[in-house]
Amino acid sequence: MDSRIFKKRIRTIRKKLSDKNIDTLIITTSANVTYTTGFSGSDSWAMVTKKAVYLLTDSRYTQQAQIESANCRVIERTGSLSQAVGKLLGKLSSVKTPAVEESISVTGLKALRKHTRMRLKTVAGIIESARTIKDAGEIATVKKAAQIAADALKKIKKFMKPGIIEIELAGRLDLEIRKLGATNSFATQVSFGSNASMPHYQPAQRKLKKNDTILIDFGAKYKGYCCDITRCFTIGKVSSFYKRVYDVVSQAQVAAIKTIKPGVKLSDVDAAARKVIAENNLPVYGHGTGHGLGLEVHEAPIVTAKAKEKLQAGQIITIEPGVYIPGKLGIRIEDDILVTKTGCKVLTADCP
Amino acid sequence: MDSRIFKKRIRTIRKKLSDKNIDTLIITTSANVTYTTGFSGSDSWAMVTKKAVYLLTDSRYTQQAQIESANCRVIERTGSLSQAVGKLLGKLSSVKTPAVEESISVTGLKALRKHTRMRLKTVAGIIESARTIKDAGEIATVKKAAQIAADALKKIKKFMKPGIIEIELAGRLDLEIRKLGATNSFATQVSFGSNASMPHYQPAQRKLKKNDTILIDFGAKYKGYCCDITRCFTIGKVSSFYKRVYDVVSQAQVAAIKTIKPGVKLSDVDAAARKVIAENNLPVYGHGTGHGLGLEVHEAPIVTAKAKEKLQAGQIITIEPGVYIPGKLGIRIEDDILVTKTGCKVLTADCP
Repeated sequence: MDSRIFKKRIRTIRKKLSDKNIDTLIITTSANVTYTTGFSGSDSWAMVTKKAVYLLTDSRYTQQAQIESANCRVIERTGSLSQAVGKLLGKLSSVKTPAVEESISVTGLKALRKHTRMRLKTVAGIIESARTIKDAGEIATVKKAAQIAADALKKIKKFMKPGIIEIELAGRLDLEIRKLGATNSFATQVSFGSNASMPHYQPAQRKLKKNDTILIDFGAKYKGYCCDITRCFTIGKVSSFYKRVYDVVSQAQVAAIKTIKPGVKLSDVDAAARKVIAENNLPVYGHGTGHGLGLEVHEAPIVTAKAKEKLQAGQIITIEPGVYIPGKLGIRIEDDILVTKTGCKVLTADCP
Repeated sequence: MDSRIFKKRIRTIRKKLSDKNIDTLIITTSANVTYTTGFSGSDSWAMVTKKAVYLLTDSRYTQQAQIESANCRVIERTGSLSQAVGKLLGKLSSVKTPAVEESISVTGLKALRKHTRMRLKTVAGIIESARTIKDAGEIATVKKAAQIAADALKKIKKFMKPGIIEIELAGRLDLEIRKLGATNSFATQVSFGSNASMPHYQPAQRKLKKNDTILIDFGAKYKGYCCDITRCFTIGKVSSFYKRVYDVVSQAQVAAIKTIKPGVKLSDVDAAARKVIAENNLPVYGHGTGHGLGLEVHEAPIVTAKAKEKLQAGQIITIEPGVYIPGKLGIRIEDDILVTKTGCKVLTADCP
């Protein structure tokens, strides 16, 4: 990680810790370790004190950590992560009020407390709230992921022909994403016909028919950053009802996107999309209208009716309204939107 | 799930709970929920009392849960999972000593305690220890996953030609696994040449050369059950040193497999493989010799020098010794082995 970006992130984290009277944070969540140190491997923890940032890893990763986390003190552990933290804390007399991320398991916390002699608090949301505002490099990387996703989807259009099964079309898309140097943000969802009415359907053996519909929900993950896109396609003739519903979902999405700018309540963005669907006498979707994305495909903030926060410049959120009628159809349109200083920008506009 | 299998599993779990003076277990780990109820969706918890088994899910999954978990009482929640558990416990006067799985996050435990009026203990390993012994249906499903993996690997042999990049070969393999109706147990690892010396290498842009070596570590996941296989291939001419190391790794694997039968210490299985490599003056690998697999690709038991348990009939473990020489080569051979009453059976023998 560029040392200016690193320093800025650590400054933000230390400020948030100081506000809670914590001098040291033990970071155990993989995406938070990556955000804090630049390290992309697994089975490693980080620790931010007032004086330094430590990365605790093992021999499999030492070489990689020294390159990726040049701004950190890399510690090669031989025992468990909690043993290594305990040992390190024992050496640092300046640490008075350490805390660990509350997302740690109870098993993990027990082990940490066993190896640590001082009182250990738990704390939630420190790194997660820092991660919600993306810097220029992060925005460029999500854009690149979105470009790869768009290019991959274009390449598989030729396979959208009667006879192909859902799981193969998903596999074809995943292969193109791989060839473009990325991986999946999550397991690609491909649903044909009425299977699309189940928002959590997993692709199976259903064959594409002569006159049919396709829903694809997928994402590319590039250099650690995710995009998340849903598109619907039709093959052959399609009912006028399907066309009407598609138009309504599209209008609902546009209505939500139009509201996006700093200071707007997330619940108002959510309401804007639902209103269009309700006014057209169609069933309003049970899931949220969107979610933040970045190092994880689902992260803060969440765009729902209950969300209390307001949008901030630098956030990237999905907007993904849908209409689901069991046994009949499922339509969802999902794009990734950057909140800018004056409004917003759709990062996935190139996707067919 | 077949109701006899369901009843047997619940009997085993209740016996383990009773041994710890617990009358009710709240199950929060996804694979453990699947094992206990048959439910394959996400965002759901289970609860085993002395009288019934509950599955707490939401409207997205109710229909699926009623089919997959016909032996359970399916509860459709509207609030959070911890609220739903609190509400249910409030109605069940027979519950006196409830416990939750210790793998829950501290955040999750706090929420549960907020919504539950009685004292709530945490407990580890109840379902995990039951899961380690596979029944006939589970063994058949892992076998089928292994067959799919073998068939997929055979299909991509034609792509192992100079010029292909690692990430594309990985994508080709994943596509074949999909076409055979399965998904990946984990992200497929393909390393060419000396890249294979990094046991946690992720496939990238490296092109296969005229004279080259390939390491593929992958698995198919079928009906929830995983297999895990590593194979090494050579293209064109290969050095006599590579051949010698391959033979040693193969001998090390055979030596470990020969020791496998009920009652043998896991540490002795581990030692058998390492001994062959050390005796041949090659560097002994830093990772474990193997691990259990089933609903998860890594589960109990672990085959390491420190492991204290003994093998039991019905366990399925990997045996995967390797030799890694940075900048030069990496060779690992991994198969999945069922512990039988009298010895063992290699489930992945059909894999090329």
